[in-house]
Amino acid sequence: MTASKSAVVLLSGGLDSTTILAIAKKEGYTPYAMTFRYGQRHEIEIEAARRVAEYYAVRDHVVVDMDLRQWGGSALTGDEEVPKSASVDDIGDGIPITYVPARNTIFLSFALGWAEVLGAQHLFIGVNALDYSGYPDCRPNFIEAFQSMANLATKSAVEGAPYKIHAPLIDCTKAEIIQRGLALGVDYQLTSSCYDPDSAGRSCGRCDACLLRRRGFQENGVEDPIAYQL
Amino acid sequence: MTASKSAVVLLSGGLDSTTILAIAKKEGYTPYAMTFRYGQRHEIEIEAARRVAEYYAVRDHVVVDMDLRQWGGSALTGDEEVPKSASVDDIGDGIPITYVPARNTIFLSFALGWAEVLGAQHLFIGVNALDYSGYPDCRPNFIEAFQSMANLATKSAVEGAPYKIHAPLIDCTKAEIIQRGLALGVDYQLTSSCYDPDSAGRSCGRCDACLLRRRGFQENGVEDPIAYQL
Repeated sequence: MTASKSAVVLLSGGLDSTTILAIAKKEGYTPYAMTFRYGQRHEIEIEAARRVAEYYAVRDHVVVDMDLRQWGGSALTGDEEVPKSASVDDIGDGIPITYVPARNTIFLSFALGWAEVLGAQHLFIGVNALDYSGYPDCRPNFIEAFQSMANLATKSAVEGAPYKIHAPLIDCTKAEIIQRGLALGVDYQLTSSCYDPDSAGRSCGRCDACLLRRRGFQENGVEDPIAYQL
Repeated sequence: MTASKSAVVLLSGGLDSTTILAIAKKEGYTPYAMTFRYGQRHEIEIEAARRVAEYYAVRDHVVVDMDLRQWGGSALTGDEEVPKSASVDDIGDGIPITYVPARNTIFLSFALGWAEVLGAQHLFIGVNALDYSGYPDCRPNFIEAFQSMANLATKSAVEGAPYKIHAPLIDCTKAEIIQRGLALGVDYQLTSSCYDPDSAGRSCGRCDACLLRRRGFQENGVEDPIAYQL
């Protein structure tokens, strides 16, 4: 395994990022996992990321602390209520208040810094544009623009080892992601997707993330193995 | 003053960033200053940034904590010695070990997130490509690529309020920067540029940053008002 097959995988502990870690492993990359404690409402995500990183025996796992609450601006980090709905059809069309300003830009920037230190040329991120709930930083043209910028920003790229940002789920629906993951043997019981779990770690079932996840399992005719408050 | 004249200014407390804050003020922007405590060897930089922010009566000043030492990879954050030289002519040609991987990418990403929350469309960064000591993320094509990426990454840009990254010193030599700053009445005694100051806050005089700064003042025929260990 050469250094150029090393990959930094952004791992939230959710369904999408766990699936991309499985894809990176399957494609022969040596994964390094990076998780952010950025002022989320809960630690459930971090615990899920640790379980997943251990399960996949990543080469190293760093949990980066940063306080995005210093600015507010999102229901995921601020005091605003996480919106809940009865079904996927009730999710609004616009960019929702769970959007965290510049989040994927910040996360990819840290991944880039770590990749440069590791000598890794590959970054994996589990964004998807179809079920993306309206976040602008989940679209293909954002990923392409970040890659172009990264290849001007760094010593290693300037010296001839450019970066590739992999977003293998970007065109997938949630159902297709789950289908791919199940084919790779992903144990989705390890994961957590909910924006607002209870203290026992049970998912609310009614936030946008839960609704999209539940429908994805339904469309596969498979039971979601995690616990819901419903 | 409309929201669109608000600007996030990256302020390290050094000579360049202090000069761009003076330029932003002069050009009529309402400045918000952002400083990073990212695992530098010393707090002198942060203290200088606080002095400068107070002097210029910025609307708000945030000091963001992050630990770039988790990865190492730079003399500015790791255990490696900061290189010292007798004169500017002895500074090496390549990218030096004081380079911090993806630093300006990370800093601009945070500035972008804060700008979006503030409704500010302007970001100021004090990079310069001539005296940049070989850092790839100080070149004009990096700044342009970051701006393009930012305008795809964010809700506000997508909704019609694009960002502009201002790097007004990018083509200036250190002497020209000081000349501009002196014309704007900048008090350089407030600033600190040294990579390796002593516990009394005196600059070493022999790291790359000190050598470039000292030559810049010499070329202006002006005495540098800060204290050196020399």
